[in-house]
Amino acid sequence: MTGPSLTRIDHVGIACHDLEAAVDRYQRLFGLAVVARETHDDQGVHEAMLEVVSGSYVQLLQPTRPDSPVGRFLARHGEGVHHIGYGVDDVQAALDALDGQGVRLVDRRPRHGSMGASIAFVHPKDVDGVLTELVQAGPR
Amino acid sequence: MTGPSLTRIDHVGIACHDLEAAVDRYQRLFGLAVVARETHDDQGVHEAMLEVVSGSYVQLLQPTRPDSPVGRFLARHGEGVHHIGYGVDDVQAALDALDGQGVRLVDRRPRHGSMGASIAFVHPKDVDGVLTELVQAGPR
Repeated sequence: MTGPSLTRIDHVGIACHDLEAAVDRYQRLFGLAVVARETHDDQGVHEAMLEVVSGSYVQLLQPTRPDSPVGRFLARHGEGVHHIGYGVDDVQAALDALDGQGVRLVDRRPRHGSMGASIAFVHPKDVDGVLTELVQAGPR
Repeated sequence: MTGPSLTRIDHVGIACHDLEAAVDRYQRLFGLAVVARETHDDQGVHEAMLEVVSGSYVQLLQPTRPDSPVGRFLARHGEGVHHIGYGVDDVQAALDALDGQGVRLVDRRPRHGSMGASIAFVHPKDVDGVLTELVQAGPR
């Protein structure tokens, strides 16, 4: 059994203390435009998606509370890359394939992600320390 | 003065202790194929580039010596995302534009990167803790 095929580097998720300052920085330094802003209370994040090229984003993340995953990451590591999101065609099939290979999953079922996507996280311990997100893009 | 336009997420650079095990893992779990293997003595890394989609790669990095940048990263943080590489059309112009905005640069001149690219690093302190690489792809 082989794993899912990755279709793109969907996004780089970057934890920051001050979302507005980070958005301004990425706009000013790299010419990126914000294409979505969302707050996910379940994940405890305010976020902004800045498009690098169609289907690939810088995702800036500010915690809504210190005990959220991104809040704890900031307390331990400071600002930096929090996770990497890769595109897949079918996130549930991808989870099943990884599960079949014995990979530890954070999510066994997809949940709602940015911009209408269905997402799930793979545990970093089985992928070289990288918190890895699988992203099935939402309907346009 | 505005900064460079980013043309793609070129690669995610992941530090690992055992390059062969990591290559096997990314091939087996995610169906990625190795498109280049290189050793850069100046940077102290053995690396493998695995293609996600044309122009976007997972770059797996194993230090050749413990006192190299990736070796020190592993000693401090363990395995994980070491840096993010973004495509630019002209890396020297990109450096000049960032320098003009007062951004701290690791490299003021491009150097040789993977697969014939010209690359340069921007200091993480000015980009939200992310060691950021600019990549002008080499001739095909």
